[in-house]
Amino acid sequence: MNIFPTVAAFEHALTAMPAPCADSIAAATARQNSLTKPAGSLGRLEEIAIFLAGWQRTERPKADHARAAIFAGNHGFTVHGVSAFPAAVTVEMVRNFQAGGAAINALARAAGMELTVVALDLDRPTADFTTAPAMTEAECLAALSAGAAVVDPDLNLLVLGEMGIGNSTAAAALCARSFGGSPEDWVGPGTGVDAAGIVRKIAVIEQALALHSDMAPFEILRRLGGREIAAIAGAVLQARKLGIAVVLDGFISCAAIAPLAAAAPTIADHIIAGHCSAEPGHRRLLDRLGLKPLLALDMRLGEGSGAAVAVAVIRAALAAHDGMATFAEAGVSNAG
Amino acid sequence: MNIFPTVAAFEHALTAMPAPCADSIAAATARQNSLTKPAGSLGRLEEIAIFLAGWQRTERPKADHARAAIFAGNHGFTVHGVSAFPAAVTVEMVRNFQAGGAAINALARAAGMELTVVALDLDRPTADFTTAPAMTEAECLAALSAGAAVVDPDLNLLVLGEMGIGNSTAAAALCARSFGGSPEDWVGPGTGVDAAGIVRKIAVIEQALALHSDMAPFEILRRLGGREIAAIAGAVLQARKLGIAVVLDGFISCAAIAPLAAAAPTIADHIIAGHCSAEPGHRRLLDRLGLKPLLALDMRLGEGSGAAVAVAVIRAALAAHDGMATFAEAGVSNAG
Repeated sequence: MNIFPTVAAFEHALTAMPAPCADSIAAATARQNSLTKPAGSLGRLEEIAIFLAGWQRTERPKADHARAAIFAGNHGFTVHGVSAFPAAVTVEMVRNFQAGGAAINALARAAGMELTVVALDLDRPTADFTTAPAMTEAECLAALSAGAAVVDPDLNLLVLGEMGIGNSTAAAALCARSFGGSPEDWVGPGTGVDAAGIVRKIAVIEQALALHSDMAPFEILRRLGGREIAAIAGAVLQARKLGIAVVLDGFISCAAIAPLAAAAPTIADHIIAGHCSAEPGHRRLLDRLGLKPLLALDMRLGEGSGAAVAVAVIRAALAAHDGMATFAEAGVSNAG
Repeated sequence: MNIFPTVAAFEHALTAMPAPCADSIAAATARQNSLTKPAGSLGRLEEIAIFLAGWQRTERPKADHARAAIFAGNHGFTVHGVSAFPAAVTVEMVRNFQAGGAAINALARAAGMELTVVALDLDRPTADFTTAPAMTEAECLAALSAGAAVVDPDLNLLVLGEMGIGNSTAAAALCARSFGGSPEDWVGPGTGVDAAGIVRKIAVIEQALALHSDMAPFEILRRLGGREIAAIAGAVLQARKLGIAVVLDGFISCAAIAPLAAAAPTIADHIIAGHCSAEPGHRRLLDRLGLKPLLALDMRLGEGSGAAVAVAVIRAALAAHDGMATFAEAGVSNAG
């Protein structure tokens, strides 16, 4: 199952970016314009149906096999006090996912999705990136492959989310290294750290950026990321290879593809941004990725929770696209 | 079934505005703060669950009996060419609703709601409000009562929407008379009228405002509204009396309560604004009503379509509120 056995395999994936099916996009657009409503009046619901038509290569896309995959990882830099929660919470929350008690369990059920939880070596946190690369080459490749492994070819929608105490600090470091800007531009309260905690986050990121200046996508991910973050990047690449649309969750999930954007400028083409989170860097990150979020509900939990809520909207979009009558079928007069 | 037999009955409803249950709000808030997530991290999902707890008078609100009620009416002023569609489309679309082919049919199904369609004297359009009040007193009371009649006491959520060719012109007139501002402030393309059509809309509204200056809520509604609009006002008032939360759709649905806001300043307290539509006046109207929309998907169809999509988000909010484990139940450490 080593989908990314080498750095070269990862780099190849960045240069092989399939496009959606133009014929299916045209057919779905024509269908939308024939349905009993003023053209364009369903707004983003129409865009979503047409977007999914392109990736599923069919006029009438479905979401009957949707999966949420949540990756969990632990971070060495948490010793510097960058989170409101102790690092032990990562493994505690994974147990909560497995027992069905977390937000993503309830939200995935409500959205009619299966849920896959992948805990990545929680007993072996990444190295503290203020003093060393977060991961070895082998560790980063293993995480990329673990992410890619959740992408069954028969999925028609894939939701990606994460859990990892401290990982909004890693995400901010990835954004600053990938897109520039100061750590302050990308740092926020995460799960609720106070002002002193934010100062510590900034200091930790400054040290990490000073130590790790390599701009190669793999090196940014390996040095400044984490296992759950690399897994999301691997899943995004594998989904693109298989033509499966992805719904990304919040700041950390989106930061996973920040290092890929320069080498693969169309990386976000098969991605729906499920929501804009309350984390201040997320809006800036979405802008840099060219993504327009579907929802803005002041959520800031992670776990794929915002993306799971977005799936309910995506289902509504597909229900209208598939279930509505055309003007001809219904005998309704079109605009004069 | 004459819930509003007299103008006095309507005026009484404006002064009798039940409040939500403070104890249930406190209990639901405490529950949210005990669930396995950083406090507040589900953002508006938390707010919605607590809001519904207050109106349903229970710590754990439900949406297992949700109804979308769509009211249709015809307008005399459509002879002035204010819509992109012919007036015959109102009755054609009602047939489409009844046959199950419209957007609201697909969206109500997707949201797990029953759908009630109420066609209000479509063969008798309201009078042209540029020369006479849109409705007689009896007609307006009948429409208010027809709206109130859809509010079964055992509903736990009520979605309200409308269909009526030309009714964005009536809605703009209601807003301008209720909240001030010029017709230009409240007029937009509706279902897609061109620039010349917008000029005609403004002229029609100016004539109507010049003719109808009475500021009593009932008189604004009767003179400048329409049957489907008065029905929404009646349903909102009856839902409030019965303690049932309402999800309002777009510009026209929200305009139905504009005339009530001065006399009943808490009128929007049991209302969720399902979305902010693409109609430019809607944002301004939501601000005046003190409502923060749940979604902003560039929708501009009416029919309750935006509110129906919002119900999917409301269901997600309730699923998290009801289905998540507490920190104690899951053995997860809380913030330090």
